Amino acid sequence: MVSYIGTERLKALVATRGPARFMSELAQEIAADYRRWDAFEKTPRHASHSTDGVIELMPTSDGRLYAFKYVNGHPKNTAAGRLTVTAFGVLADVATGYPLLLAEMTYVTAFRTAAVSALAARHLARPGARSMALIGNGAQAEFQVIAFHALVGVREVRLFDTDPEATRKLVRNLERLDLEGLRVQVSASTAQAVRGADIVTTVTADKRNALILTPEMIEPGMHVNAVGGDCPGKTELHVDILRRADAHIVVEFEPQARIEGEIQQLTAETDPAVSELAQLLSAQRPGRRSDRDVTIFDSVGFALNDFSALRYLARLDGEIASPQAIDLIPALADPKDLWGGLVRARAPAPRTGARLEVPA
Amino acid sequence: MVSYIGTERLKALVATRGPARFMSELAQEIAADYRRWDAFEKTPRHASHSTDGVIELMPTSDGRLYAFKYVNGHPKNTAAGRLTVTAFGVLADVATGYPLLLAEMTYVTAFRTAAVSALAARHLARPGARSMALIGNGAQAEFQVIAFHALVGVREVRLFDTDPEATRKLVRNLERLDLEGLRVQVSASTAQAVRGADIVTTVTADKRNALILTPEMIEPGMHVNAVGGDCPGKTELHVDILRRADAHIVVEFEPQARIEGEIQQLTAETDPAVSELAQLLSAQRPGRRSDRDVTIFDSVGFALNDFSALRYLARLDGEIASPQAIDLIPALADPKDLWGGLVRARAPAPRTGARLEVPA
Repeated sequence: MVSYIGTERLKALVATRGPARFMSELAQEIAADYRRWDAFEKTPRHASHSTDGVIELMPTSDGRLYAFKYVNGHPKNTAAGRLTVTAFGVLADVATGYPLLLAEMTYVTAFRTAAVSALAARHLARPGARSMALIGNGAQAEFQVIAFHALVGVREVRLFDTDPEATRKLVRNLERLDLEGLRVQVSASTAQAVRGADIVTTVTADKRNALILTPEMIEPGMHVNAVGGDCPGKTELHVDILRRADAHIVVEFEPQARIEGEIQQLTAETDPAVSELAQLLSAQRPGRRSDRDVTIFDSVGFALNDFSALRYLARLDGEIASPQAIDLIPALADPKDLWGGLVRARAPAPRTGARLEVPA
Repeated sequence: MVSYIGTERLKALVATRGPARFMSELAQEIAADYRRWDAFEKTPRHASHSTDGVIELMPTSDGRLYAFKYVNGHPKNTAAGRLTVTAFGVLADVATGYPLLLAEMTYVTAFRTAAVSALAARHLARPGARSMALIGNGAQAEFQVIAFHALVGVREVRLFDTDPEATRKLVRNLERLDLEGLRVQVSASTAQAVRGADIVTTVTADKRNALILTPEMIEPGMHVNAVGGDCPGKTELHVDILRRADAHIVVEFEPQARIEGEIQQLTAETDPAVSELAQLLSAQRPGRRSDRDVTIFDSVGFALNDFSALRYLARLDGEIASPQAIDLIPALADPKDLWGGLVRARAPAPRTGARLEVPA
């Protein structure tokens, strides 16, 4: 049997833990894996592009556990009442090849994306940063606010979206969340939201080279958390922001970011160098160097983030009562007798297979 | 909700249909897709190799449906009571990116591998071929016998395995299957099993360059169905068999077979050319040319086979009562309100999402 965390189980896990603690523990797990960056197999994701979107497979392994995520990106989906991004993932045992856990990752991707954004901001935003402009108030927005409130100390958010309905939804949800000391402000434009903010987060969904942020909006000392540009032809920042002499750009995995991130607009040869998040988190490279630097986290999502998230889920699932399992893999008395397994009236008592021992 | 076919549901589907009809319908579905070969996105599978085995992701798409399979290969697993190969797959809607079906594919891979072997043999074995040597009597063996009995007309099988227990298991299962007119013979060696056989099928599991078949065993007119050599460093045939002047080698997808198949032992430049199965099935290339040709089907398994199998399962699942579904994807009233979905006490009535309309 394979452990199973569907959307209902995930809701129960988050409710039991509380969203802020869930987010913080997840961020810790991700940071710990980035600190052993060299242990991971790194390949660009496998992407299947079509007219309306993309379906991707994101695998990685540390030689002990293997994980992959299936994720799509279809910006037109919302018009038909569907999600832009859906995802699920599998954690497997490298020694036997057996899948251990199948988990929903639509919610989990939103958590882990926000957790990684906050981890980067802890090293890149000005110490004492308290205000954040949040451009794009869709599916990812609440998660970003929870992460920056819990992990960075943000206490003021200024919201803007071209769809006022999205902003109203976000305000409503934030009111219910009632995060300690958080002031929520609705802005009339991106420029208004950004003006004077310590941190600017962009999480828009259009699949095109958009200009959500333009050079005149950027003030010295700002940290830009650019989340929505994450596939070829889908960016959010004007290229001149990336080319600022005082800009410090950080990515998760450079070869992938060059294809999918904001820096697809740059050329590796002539434009400024970028740092990788692992170097920051393991203190091999400095984060922010002065209060006037412009820092940019160009996030596209990397397989490692999902690996950490799946391992965290596996551990949490084991800690909290009533885990579920599905019969995705045959349970055979004799492994050479696959046919016998198929025609037996009933499967024998489920084998638990390789027991997942989660590292501390 | 995503449709779910676990091992118990798969057993019910096979039992309702009967194994021979299940195999034949599956083979038809696969052949139909090979005839529209150019419609498919073809990339080599993504393989993560470790000391003891490999975990692979095999994606493909025809622009309308997308499918991928997760499959491992761990030869040492059987010693610990585990399967060498386990697999599962997902069928998704290209237009929305939503997964439609999650299915077990350990059993299904065994079916589709045998179905493809039989499809190739119908074009490559001598007309009237009735006897088959079956070297390797493990998990795949029964499926090969069912396929060659139903689709090629084989009425005599000669069995050999280095593990006599595996052969006894196969004999027992074949007795229970009681396939019409089938004579089952146990051989003392590979050479004895092969001598005089019309067809030679090799399905061994060792991860090395093995010499299951050597040149002196091969007789004019034989068809060799080489199934077990399917990853780098894992082959079954002596290279001189592949280099015979009268040999006609057929593969599923040449770029992948050059890496993973028997023909990894050849060089594309100096050695004889190979044909692709799609060319045979669409009559663009001849199968066997004379009664004395040696034909070789060098099968490694291709994503298209799994695509066809998943679509067949989806259709069958819809036809037979009591299909199952799992909550792998959130069902949201407002797709921009992902957070709202997470904290609502209960999900609303499940959306069926994109309805899978299976082409005739």
